Amino acid sequence: MGGGFGGLSLAQSLKNVPVDVTLLDRANYHLFQPLLYQVATGSLSPANIAAPLRQVLRRQQNTTVFLADVTDIDTTRKRVILSDREISYDTLVVATGSSHQYFGHDEWGKYAPGLKTIEDATAMRSRILLAFEAAEREKDPEERRAWLTFVIVGGGPTGVELAGALGEIANDTLRHDFRDIDPSSARILLVEGSDRILPPYPPELSQKAQAMLQRLGVTVCTGTMVTSIESDAVTVHRGQHTEKFRTRTILWAAGVAASPLGQALAKSIGAPVDKAGRVVVQPDLTVPGHPEIFVIGDLANFSHQNGKPLPGVAQPAIQEGRYVANVIKSRLSGATEALKPFHYVDRGNLAVIGRGAAVADLLKIRLSGWPAWLIWIFIHLVNIVEFQDKILVLLQWGWLYLSYDRSARLITGRDPSKLDLL
Amino acid sequence: MGGGFGGLSLAQSLKNVPVDVTLLDRANYHLFQPLLYQVATGSLSPANIAAPLRQVLRRQQNTTVFLADVTDIDTTRKRVILSDREISYDTLVVATGSSHQYFGHDEWGKYAPGLKTIEDATAMRSRILLAFEAAEREKDPEERRAWLTFVIVGGGPTGVELAGALGEIANDTLRHDFRDIDPSSARILLVEGSDRILPPYPPELSQKAQAMLQRLGVTVCTGTMVTSIESDAVTVHRGQHTEKFRTRTILWAAGVAASPLGQALAKSIGAPVDKAGRVVVQPDLTVPGHPEIFVIGDLANFSHQNGKPLPGVAQPAIQEGRYVANVIKSRLSGATEALKPFHYVDRGNLAVIGRGAAVADLLKIRLSGWPAWLIWIFIHLVNIVEFQDKILVLLQWGWLYLSYDRSARLITGRDPSKLDLL
Repeated sequence: MGGGFGGLSLAQSLKNVPVDVTLLDRANYHLFQPLLYQVATGSLSPANIAAPLRQVLRRQQNTTVFLADVTDIDTTRKRVILSDREISYDTLVVATGSSHQYFGHDEWGKYAPGLKTIEDATAMRSRILLAFEAAEREKDPEERRAWLTFVIVGGGPTGVELAGALGEIANDTLRHDFRDIDPSSARILLVEGSDRILPPYPPELSQKAQAMLQRLGVTVCTGTMVTSIESDAVTVHRGQHTEKFRTRTILWAAGVAASPLGQALAKSIGAPVDKAGRVVVQPDLTVPGHPEIFVIGDLANFSHQNGKPLPGVAQPAIQEGRYVANVIKSRLSGATEALKPFHYVDRGNLAVIGRGAAVADLLKIRLSGWPAWLIWIFIHLVNIVEFQDKILVLLQWGWLYLSYDRSARLITGRDPSKLDLL
Repeated sequence: MGGGFGGLSLAQSLKNVPVDVTLLDRANYHLFQPLLYQVATGSLSPANIAAPLRQVLRRQQNTTVFLADVTDIDTTRKRVILSDREISYDTLVVATGSSHQYFGHDEWGKYAPGLKTIEDATAMRSRILLAFEAAEREKDPEERRAWLTFVIVGGGPTGVELAGALGEIANDTLRHDFRDIDPSSARILLVEGSDRILPPYPPELSQKAQAMLQRLGVTVCTGTMVTSIESDAVTVHRGQHTEKFRTRTILWAAGVAASPLGQALAKSIGAPVDKAGRVVVQPDLTVPGHPEIFVIGDLANFSHQNGKPLPGVAQPAIQEGRYVANVIKSRLSGATEALKPFHYVDRGNLAVIGRGAAVADLLKIRLSGWPAWLIWIFIHLVNIVEFQDKILVLLQWGWLYLSYDRSARLITGRDPSKLDLL
């Protein structure tokens, strides 16, 4: 279940294995999530980073793709419950990922949208562009300031990438577009609770990323906790100080919550789950007591060597998918118990800030600036699933590089008569 | 008012004229409507055919772009009324276009969506793709047949282009994608009230277009009127016969209704409007008695030499925009009365059915098949506004040509838990 990095890698690894594979997903496409922020900031179109699952798996005759919303799992009868039917299984792999969470403040969701789906990304894109439009129309200087203030909550890779792209939009992309406002006067705040941005990176790279963001006009507020979010303001707490920023655009790049199927497994078979709702899996990625149920990807809490769970990014999910395929192959051949536990090979981390600005932590090698940026481009292009999309993305990046134009700058999906309410 | 072909052509023609231009539109982009059906059928992404208005007009310092929903026009005080403010004018050009209409059956809109906006196109794309997904899940043969039956109402260019693209999707694009259904067994009906499709074209080209559609598996029903549309059926009337088709996907490419601002002008200054709600304009495109108010594009009813109003397509709108710019220039120079009435230069018509299949009526020259198709591609590429989009569209067409892949095949914007209700 799940057509993300984990589910797709598993299905592809089972290509020539004599099993029947059913891939269930709510969407009809595999989403290349690492580039989702580029849709949210108007650099790429949704279709550039989404590959139709049926197309990716069309030549794989043992695999069926179902567009489905899984409501529950009946582990006793070995069935996955959909809204209109049931599907039986011998082996079940749950890879349903995560969504964002607001640390118990669900009411913040209304004002601070997150970024997990294509719909999230196009909605975020509309919000950002509408804010500049609203500022251009606004006469009151204080209100205009609020429209031109952008607060990004969370200084992980997504927050950093969003802040960098917003900096470029304000300073370069929109430079000549308005008559009454100067887009480069926009105030972009990146709020992070811990003492530096990109906490999983080495401190020196966090510093470099912060310097690059500042060059793009982003104000980085580390050690700062958000205590309240309203429709037109964010209140933050930093040491002894409390500060309230008036803003009309708040973007959420902080908390992650596991898919509710983790809780469903906890309820039905007592699978252990952590605070974030992830299933704590065995060394072979199964649920304790249920060797026929695997959990991989963002939904799994797999303890790495250092004792910390693996991060919810693409690499662990892909490797877990391949590992599970090997377990299944090995079980088919009868040699069940011999397989080694899953071992994650960390290939490092990459985050991009802007044109020629990125940080790379490739284990022994730490890079920043142009070299990291070029590696980032190369790795992302190589990993985009469809060949056509590789070309289209490369072209659009080339164009963006030369002109700063973001051509996918569309405000869509809103009711035009509600423009003023936003 | 209006950032379509008419409004944009006018604004661009006023580039070096000493006037202040304010362009109002509900959307922040100029939409290249002739290719909208390609978004609806998954060949192109919305951003490929939408150019941000601010970007197109960024170097034009006399022009201001406003994202606005016009609610009314106060012709006495010479003001355009927006929801939150008023804008005064000396000269007003109304180019707010048209939307679809259901010949008095507004209840059909729920089941038979039309195609005028990007939101319409992505919704239509989702419906088409979901129908194949639902057919794959459906066990009952009659229900499955209904999911695999597509009815397109209206045999004008949009209907013909949609039907041709659907034929290619069913026969080629999805060929290997499903396990339980054969997409090429889909039944595609094109329903047209008059006695041939593409009524404005010469009869020989209508015949050729019909033959090309039939080769793609489309059933063309001419002389056929739709008398009823329900959630799962269309009833048609043909001569003495009434027939009911069970179908879950009905696409509307028939009636066109002028923008409500036509009626607003009729009420406030007694502008004459025709049955379709278009403003019947003077030979200089002004409203009778109001030389300061022009109406152009789909909203205008301008009688051509043959007495018929100009068709609601791009060419008349563009030429009307240029003409109005000339009138304004000429008035500035004082020589008001000398200008000749608007004269439309018909450059011909083009419609595409599929790969290598198109019809072209270029006045003296009538073409079909490959030559018409190549001309169609050339003309559309030349006319796409942004250079980057020309390249991206060309690439995607090249890819489509080679592989039949439609990579923008995304089902988006729906609530996944409502999958089964569609």
